[in-house]
Amino acid sequence: MSIASTLHPPSPAVVDFASLRSMIAARLQVLLPGPDESPQRLHGAMRHALVGPGKRLRPLLTLLAARRFGGDEAAALEAGCAVEMVHTASLVLDDLPCMDDAELRRGKPATHRAFGEDTAILAAIALLNQAYGVMAALPGVSDTVRLRLVTLMVQAVGPQGLVGGQERDLHDRHGPAATSDVDLLNHQKTGVLFVAALEAGAVLGHAPEEGVAAMRRFGRHLGLAFQTLDDLLDATATAQMAGKDVRQDGGKATLVSLCGLEAARRRVEEHLGQARREVAWPGGPACVLETLLDEMTAILPFPPGSAALPRDGQHAG
Amino acid sequence: MSIASTLHPPSPAVVDFASLRSMIAARLQVLLPGPDESPQRLHGAMRHALVGPGKRLRPLLTLLAARRFGGDEAAALEAGCAVEMVHTASLVLDDLPCMDDAELRRGKPATHRAFGEDTAILAAIALLNQAYGVMAALPGVSDTVRLRLVTLMVQAVGPQGLVGGQERDLHDRHGPAATSDVDLLNHQKTGVLFVAALEAGAVLGHAPEEGVAAMRRFGRHLGLAFQTLDDLLDATATAQMAGKDVRQDGGKATLVSLCGLEAARRRVEEHLGQARREVAWPGGPACVLETLLDEMTAILPFPPGSAALPRDGQHAG
Repeated sequence: MSIASTLHPPSPAVVDFASLRSMIAARLQVLLPGPDESPQRLHGAMRHALVGPGKRLRPLLTLLAARRFGGDEAAALEAGCAVEMVHTASLVLDDLPCMDDAELRRGKPATHRAFGEDTAILAAIALLNQAYGVMAALPGVSDTVRLRLVTLMVQAVGPQGLVGGQERDLHDRHGPAATSDVDLLNHQKTGVLFVAALEAGAVLGHAPEEGVAAMRRFGRHLGLAFQTLDDLLDATATAQMAGKDVRQDGGKATLVSLCGLEAARRRVEEHLGQARREVAWPGGPACVLETLLDEMTAILPFPPGSAALPRDGQHAG
Repeated sequence: MSIASTLHPPSPAVVDFASLRSMIAARLQVLLPGPDESPQRLHGAMRHALVGPGKRLRPLLTLLAARRFGGDEAAALEAGCAVEMVHTASLVLDDLPCMDDAELRRGKPATHRAFGEDTAILAAIALLNQAYGVMAALPGVSDTVRLRLVTLMVQAVGPQGLVGGQERDLHDRHGPAATSDVDLLNHQKTGVLFVAALEAGAVLGHAPEEGVAAMRRFGRHLGLAFQTLDDLLDATATAQMAGKDVRQDGGKATLVSLCGLEAARRRVEEHLGQARREVAWPGGPACVLETLLDEMTAILPFPPGSAALPRDGQHAG
């Protein structure tokens, strides 16, 4: 089967991101236990962390990857929400006093500030657990596909993914580091979940394996671009602009600390360019994921090349 | 199909618990990332929490339930180890300073005392995540069975299971309580994972649904007996005897605080009796799980009716 034959005909690539985000927000509400269900405090903390304004990039990636290959959007919406739950659980844990000790998240008090550390930790576990539950019960797909997505998420969360990335971030990042170490860390902290979101969408879209592989590469570049932008944000924005604590990276090796703002900015542009080439695969039609790259440029705090991105010429190497 | 026809012929019910425990310990080692794999600190914390002396009751339950119905022991060993990982993850979290603030666990420093709170939390997540990975890859069974066991574990961990039980334990247990509230809490904190372990074994043993249901009831009674014994232990033993911190229940409602030691002891005996009736189902042959009840009586710190169990006549009601 040729890859091109699996693609939808070239579309005008009009994607209504606002309505996709509303759909995601509505589905997240449904997938959580009701606010009146016991234990209410736990469920309140889960909602506090998950519901509210958010870029919802990961579920968007799943939905758009499925749409790119022509898959069922009901299952993709569900899978994207599961990935968002994993992401939110990781934010709740990263913000804990024993980790980044953050006060703000998504413009609100961090979950442990609102509900206490104990309930915040339990809410994170419950969100992670619920994510597996959602993947294991995806509508309209075979048990084999469900199991593939559960396994994919296990790999994204584990010691070579989010958990390992956070451990390295906390304990292996204060000595001298090479940019390749930082890239690995950034991939584990961010890229793996982008990759999982895209791979889930591609699988649900019945993409051929080479299409799934292209989505994985796309996710990797997007993740590296995104995490480097986050480091740029941490180094330059105010908490109000970011909606979360900033200057959290003090003393930690980032591409900004190693190479300076300008070089970090160039790396962002390079990765976004490589990502764009992967979604243009196999070459040709305008595609929903290219639209997402444009959308990302609009929603990211410091779009590459924008005047808002400081250019101070701090070159360390 | 009659239930009796699915059972092995009456066996002499000789179970070599020491060799089963050795098999479990060896398999747990294999299922963890190697100690030299990066990030080593994370993997060290996972091993610290999981490896070492332990009663391994939950994997024993899975193995013996599978054996009772004649199922494949390779898959049951793996599934039992997954349940043990979930149990261990819950212990690591329960011991955190923001929860029970324990110093000792299984006779060693609690994981956060040895590795710091941040790494302990990440190790707990990694163990939980690995448990899902193990369930999703059980050898020699269909994807549908794997998925059933993943789902079963999601229910055991979630807001109506371990996570909800711990939340209630921390925040809903200091006012007046009825014994039924304490039973619900004890079931969520302990029973659900006994039930999951037994159900997994029964499913892997190809038990008929009524056999699975009997195993669930057995697990519920066993869990209630076990948690009440744990409360008795907390009230009466020394840390050295228990291998963990004691007097952790001060101020919390337990069957001991509500009804006194003697009534709590009687409840243990009643639940063990009901458990015994469930494994005798459908009535008749000596069975490996009855052997486990005898074994439990030997390994539990205060076997019902033993002289070691204080009888102080403290009746609150």
